[in-house]
Amino acid sequence: MNIVIATDSFKGSASSLEVAGFIEKGIRRVTPGANIVKLPLADGGEGTVEALTSTLEGRYVEREVTGPLGEKVKAKFGIINDRIAVIEMAEASGLTLIKEEDKNPFITTTYGTGELIKAALDFDVKEILIGIGGSATNDGGVGMAQALGGSFKDADNLEIPFGARALEKIQYIDLAGLDKRLAHTKITVLSDVTNPLCGENGASFVYGPQKGASSSEEIQELDSLLRSYGEKLEEKLGRTFIDVVGSGAAGGLGAGLMAFCNAEVNSGIEKILEIIRLREYVESADLVITGEGKMDFQSVQGKAPIGVAKIANAFKVPVVAVVGSEGDQANQVYKHGIDLVIDIINKPMKIQEAMKNVEKLTEDAGEKVMRAYLLRKFLGR
Amino acid sequence: MNIVIATDSFKGSASSLEVAGFIEKGIRRVTPGANIVKLPLADGGEGTVEALTSTLEGRYVEREVTGPLGEKVKAKFGIINDRIAVIEMAEASGLTLIKEEDKNPFITTTYGTGELIKAALDFDVKEILIGIGGSATNDGGVGMAQALGGSFKDADNLEIPFGARALEKIQYIDLAGLDKRLAHTKITVLSDVTNPLCGENGASFVYGPQKGASSSEEIQELDSLLRSYGEKLEEKLGRTFIDVVGSGAAGGLGAGLMAFCNAEVNSGIEKILEIIRLREYVESADLVITGEGKMDFQSVQGKAPIGVAKIANAFKVPVVAVVGSEGDQANQVYKHGIDLVIDIINKPMKIQEAMKNVEKLTEDAGEKVMRAYLLRKFLGR
Repeated sequence: MNIVIATDSFKGSASSLEVAGFIEKGIRRVTPGANIVKLPLADGGEGTVEALTSTLEGRYVEREVTGPLGEKVKAKFGIINDRIAVIEMAEASGLTLIKEEDKNPFITTTYGTGELIKAALDFDVKEILIGIGGSATNDGGVGMAQALGGSFKDADNLEIPFGARALEKIQYIDLAGLDKRLAHTKITVLSDVTNPLCGENGASFVYGPQKGASSSEEIQELDSLLRSYGEKLEEKLGRTFIDVVGSGAAGGLGAGLMAFCNAEVNSGIEKILEIIRLREYVESADLVITGEGKMDFQSVQGKAPIGVAKIANAFKVPVVAVVGSEGDQANQVYKHGIDLVIDIINKPMKIQEAMKNVEKLTEDAGEKVMRAYLLRKFLGR
Repeated sequence: MNIVIATDSFKGSASSLEVAGFIEKGIRRVTPGANIVKLPLADGGEGTVEALTSTLEGRYVEREVTGPLGEKVKAKFGIINDRIAVIEMAEASGLTLIKEEDKNPFITTTYGTGELIKAALDFDVKEILIGIGGSATNDGGVGMAQALGGSFKDADNLEIPFGARALEKIQYIDLAGLDKRLAHTKITVLSDVTNPLCGENGASFVYGPQKGASSSEEIQELDSLLRSYGEKLEEKLGRTFIDVVGSGAAGGLGAGLMAFCNAEVNSGIEKILEIIRLREYVESADLVITGEGKMDFQSVQGKAPIGVAKIANAFKVPVVAVVGSEGDQANQVYKHGIDLVIDIINKPMKIQEAMKNVEKLTEDAGEKVMRAYLLRKFLGR
């Protein structure tokens, strides 16, 4: 009996690694001897480093880098087989590093993310995967480029300070000092974000408010700053970023990574399914279990469980989703390859109760999955 | 594809007939052409008449009878194949017929229940099934006996009035006038209640409070009244009722039915499973679906779903329970023949929300059951 557990996290409640562990426990209540492979998923958001480093048996590295407000922070990343580094920008430049009252997208910088990339390059890896969810920044990746040797000067030939506010001062961009190792290291951004750098669907309008932009004037201003930066970038590099899909990810870090690191932006989940070699494990599996925190009609748009289901479907392996909760039209997923959804909520309760008891509830759900699977034992009675 | 749906009600939310209908709808989303037999269950409590009359395609009869406080009420019962009558005592003598502030177990009577039995006898049936859940009374069934021709007189040779308070006045019991048809009609009480007439586990102590006994003195008094009545009964009939299992059901109506109607008290669910011929349907079923409002560790003690599971197990048919919610150690039921439990709660919500949306939630659960069952399609891929 071969079972593959490839679930996303239950955001804010349990990491994908934890969720997979809970489900495993529930399954073992019924079939203690099952051969279970846990491949916790990530989509470039929180938990990406943990999920990939644990699944691929890599090791963690910690570095002190510059935080979003210029303070020092400790940031972890993963090194896998000495060939791949996994970074989360949020470890260095994330919203969770800042107190609510200190959020300010005009002054936050991605400098620390650049330092993390530099630290990863020191390991002589072939590829760097960067999860860019949860950013506190709106600086277009300028801080990141500065940390890697790029230079952005104002009319007085002075290096501009951190943050989006300074973007309008840029007069000269000098990339001659950029870390040479970037040229022969593949940089892959794990992101499902398709927003462009500027405009109503752009970084500032869509994500500005959660980073601390508190009025439409501020949002407008952030957008103008990124636009002036985008124009300078186009002038310098001879290609546009302003309307490019994904350039608006992480406050324009998407554009910066494309421009300075020649990064490829990849749907987080597909890349990750490839890296963890899900296909190989599914091929010999009897059952695949996937899952996510909330399953609803949006789940069919390329999120983790549907990506897993596609692969399971290709090998004709049944795939059951264990989910924290089900939202509107969750049963749409049945049209997209998921064979059964089991949620962890088993009686009327508050969300706080569900989060507190996530371990037991998810174990119980894992048990249900196995019991549902075993209904087949009656076949041919 | 033959499916049997034999569920209990979701008490306070949906009748067993409704629950079965919701589950059917969910199943038909997946397998529209399935052959589905609905056998809604009852255990002698609320919904017993509806469940049995609908399942066995009987007809409803309505009679005006005496309510628990002596007022006139309309009460329904069922006649099946002109051979069996199904009565709920609560239709004539139930707690739901009384306003909260009028609850008073010292004065409420089972007289109306006796009138219903009399009305059923008029149909010349061979058997009367009596559900005795939800009683407002504590009169030991004396009112019922009076309606059927029995006489209970005080020291002044006057017929005692309604209610438990009058029980202490009984000096003479005369059963010569009891309806003669009782002698050749089988009376079966559908009840899982095992409480005796008197004592700490008796009718007054256990059920007195919900009927309006508001202090331990009142409860004690009710218990003494039933004891003096029990002693008179023993004197008259030469057998004891005070400590007999089930004699305390429905405020001592259990004792009264045994004493005056020679009733047999039968575990509600087993009798009902027999009457609805569950065995015959299960024998040719591919899947049995059962269920109840709340499943927990108590569910293994002979309640409806476990009764259904026993029969399904005997025929090696898989049995899935659809439940309103799961309580403590609900997964104990897996050791008692239930193969899978699917609850209807699919996200954090209040009980009011669950009750309001019981139709859609139960349909969704029905769909899940079918999808769980169909995981077998991957067998032998």
